[in-house]
Formats: sequence, structure tokens, C-alpha cells
Amino acid sequence: MQHSTIIAFDADDTLWHNEPYFEEAQDKFCRLFEGYTSKQDLLQLLLQHQVNNLPLYGFGIKAFVLSMIESGLELTHQQLSGEAIDKIIQIGKDLLQKPVELLPEVESVLQSLHGKYRLVVATKGDLKDQHRKLHDSGIGHYFHHIEVMSDKTELDYEKMLKRLDIQPENFVMIGNSLKSDVLPVLNIGGTGIHIPYQTTWEYERIDFEIQHPKFKALQSITELQQLF
Amino acid sequence: MQHSTIIAFDADDTLWHNEPYFEEAQDKFCRLFEGYTSKQDLLQLLLQHQVNNLPLYGFGIKAFVLSMIESGLELTHQQLSGEAIDKIIQIGKDLLQKPVELLPEVESVLQSLHGKYRLVVATKGDLKDQHRKLHDSGIGHYFHHIEVMSDKTELDYEKMLKRLDIQPENFVMIGNSLKSDVLPVLNIGGTGIHIPYQTTWEYERIDFEIQHPKFKALQSITELQQLF
Repeated sequence: MQHSTIIAFDADDTLWHNEPYFEEAQDKFCRLFEGYTSKQDLLQLLLQHQVNNLPLYGFGIKAFVLSMIESGLELTHQQLSGEAIDKIIQIGKDLLQKPVELLPEVESVLQSLHGKYRLVVATKGDLKDQHRKLHDSGIGHYFHHIEVMSDKTELDYEKMLKRLDIQPENFVMIGNSLKSDVLPVLNIGGTGIHIPYQTTWEYERIDFEIQHPKFKALQSITELQQLF
Repeated sequence: MQHSTIIAFDADDTLWHNEPYFEEAQDKFCRLFEGYTSKQDLLQLLLQHQVNNLPLYGFGIKAFVLSMIESGLELTHQQLSGEAIDKIIQIGKDLLQKPVELLPEVESVLQSLHGKYRLVVATKGDLKDQHRKLHDSGIGHYFHHIEVMSDKTELDYEKMLKRLDIQPENFVMIGNSLKSDVLPVLNIGGTGIHIPYQTTWEYERIDFEIQHPKFKALQSITELQQLF
């Protein structure tokens, strides 16, 4: 690896905890509709609205809130109380103010890579929210560039690489999602490194194994120090 | 001006029409609450929610929808029907699918500047939505870089200039908002060019005149061709 290499990190559930906050938010949402349907069915309905809304809303907490409201409307045949709507909006506002808790050893790994490689954050989600989290995380200064992406398809990565003026051979992407952080990067000729998080959003799951010369599966972020 | 100059354009109401769509959306929103209060008071309530929500939500259509819902809840003391909520959500979805209509002469001006300067789009709003609009506009290929900003403060411009690796002396920002496109840019040492649009969102209005050696006020985008 040379100095010209860019190492890009996904943010949510790669640098800091995120999915547990969403699961807590979903639990609160489900409690608003106890008696209507099973938790499992409600979460399925919510996921369906989230996925249907992706082309218009993209990723992030505001899209999540709007999809919760839509799911509540559908479930109750539009007999949703103003009080319930208010609570859903508050679930979103709480999410937008959660403390940023770094995953173990993230900072020491960034310290050891900093200066040797150009480090980038490449994340999906709400622009404002991701900037806020990076600021609150206290690790913003390790990064050369922050890219909040509207999606993580091959085309999105290609555009980012063009903007960063770097060839795929010199691009390494690290993240907890095989679907978003690894597969599209391998497909455009980059290196994809998977570090699993304790839990994965259903939308990000894939049900096959990846065999690829530029794919690496690690157990923990500290293993990056042996690689780089 | 040299080739190293970056000319950045605001997007909404500078490259394409936007505010009339928002005003149409606000009209639809107000019609949902006829009889509750005057249109003027309702729009004031909405603006207040939008401004209060800026630190958490930022700019863009999803934030606008959530603020409409909040305003409706407040106005009706939470006695907002599911049907009204559904209509508000639909107002947002309609906005997210509006055709992109370029302002007159935009493309010919871009054509004449393209190749001589690095052209950038610097816009606020939802990430996905702004990318969609730039794509639909058919003018994306004139631009070296697209920056969707979570806000347009001096600090936001400074960060962008650092990322673009350019000094403020070589940075020109063009837009319809004195508050967002001109003042912060002048304050960090860049050139700010104002091109008014037929109507301005109340939040973007300022009530003083700008006198600054690096400030230029144009009547139309075609006047850029005399300047550059």
C-alpha cells in the first residue's frame, strides 16, 4: 500500500454505534400500536414503506420518521391520533440528538493510519445529521474528506472516486455492510473490507458468501493495523 | 480572472425554478386548515417551526414536510386527522417529483463559461433531491463538482474551499440569496454575485444594502458573460 491510497470508512456501526438507537426507536414506535398487530408485522410494514420511499427520500432519520408516520396511517386506516403523530416525530428528534459513542479502538486505529494514508468518511444518511455526528465524535480531524452519499451504488462510488481523483486500485472501503460497503466497491475494482457489527439492518443483509481476491473479512477494526 | 478561478452557482432559484413550487405547496397546506386561522398566521407558524427545526433537520423538503405536520398539530391542538397528515405527506412527495425547469439563458451561460473556469454547484437541501434535480436538469456535465451543503455559513464555505483546495480570492459565488450566497462569501474574502429571483423565501431575506468591493449585483444571469 502506498501513500496515495485512500482508506474510506463507513460511519454508522463502523466508527460509532447506530443500529441499537434505531432498534430502540423502532421499539418505541411498535409500543404505540400494541393491540393493532404483531411487532414483527409492524416492522415488516415499516421496512416496506422505507424501501418504497428510498427513491424519493433516500436514507436517514427524516425519511425514517416519514415512513413511520405512513406505516401508522396505513395500519390504522388513517385513524391515527395527533398524539401518536407527535410521539413519532419526537422519536425522530430523540434519534437526531443521541450521543455519539465510538466503537472500541476506533480512535487508536485512526491515529495509527493518519498521516500514512488519506482517510475519508463515506456514509449514507441525512447530511446535517452525519455532519453533526462527525463533529460530536471528536474524530473529524483524522479525515481528509467527508462524503455523505445519497446511496452507495457502484455509480455513487465511481462519482466519489472521480471527485477524489483516485483510481479504484488505490481505494479501500471499510464497513459493516456487505451490500453497501463491500460489494459495489469490489465491482468497480476497489478493495472491500468487512467488519461486522453486532446487528445489521434487514435492508443491508445479503444471503450469500463473497469470494473475491480483493475482499477481506475482519473480526475487529484493530486488525486493520496488521493490514496497513 | 484566471483559469484557476472556481465559479460556484447556487441551484434553487438561480439555475432552476424552485420557490414557486414551495409557494404552491404552502397554498395547498393552507387550504387544509381554512377556518382555523388566517393564511398569513399559518404561514408564520410554519416558518417558525421550520426555523426552530433547522438545527436538527437542516434544509430541504423532508424537513419542510415534518414542519408542516408539526404546525398542523399545534394549530389543531393535536386534533389533526389522519387524512390531513396523509395530504401533507403527499404535498411533500409531489414536491420531490416536480419537473426541473431551467431559468432562461442558464445553459448558454454555462456553455460559455465551461472550460474557462471550474464550475461548481453549491446548494442546500436534501441530498437525494438535489442530486435528482441536477440529473433531471440535463446540465450536470457542465460542473466539476456538486456540493450539497447542510448550511451556507462562513464555516461551511471555508470547509468547501479547503476541500476544493482553492483560496477565497479565486472563489466566486453566484446566487439569489444575499443572506446565504453573498454575505458569508464576502466575509471570508470571496466574490459574491447576486442575481435576484422573482420571489424570495422569507427566511432568506435581509433588510439592509450591501456595499462591498467584491460584491456585484446583476439583473440577469446573462450579464455574467460580460464579467467573465
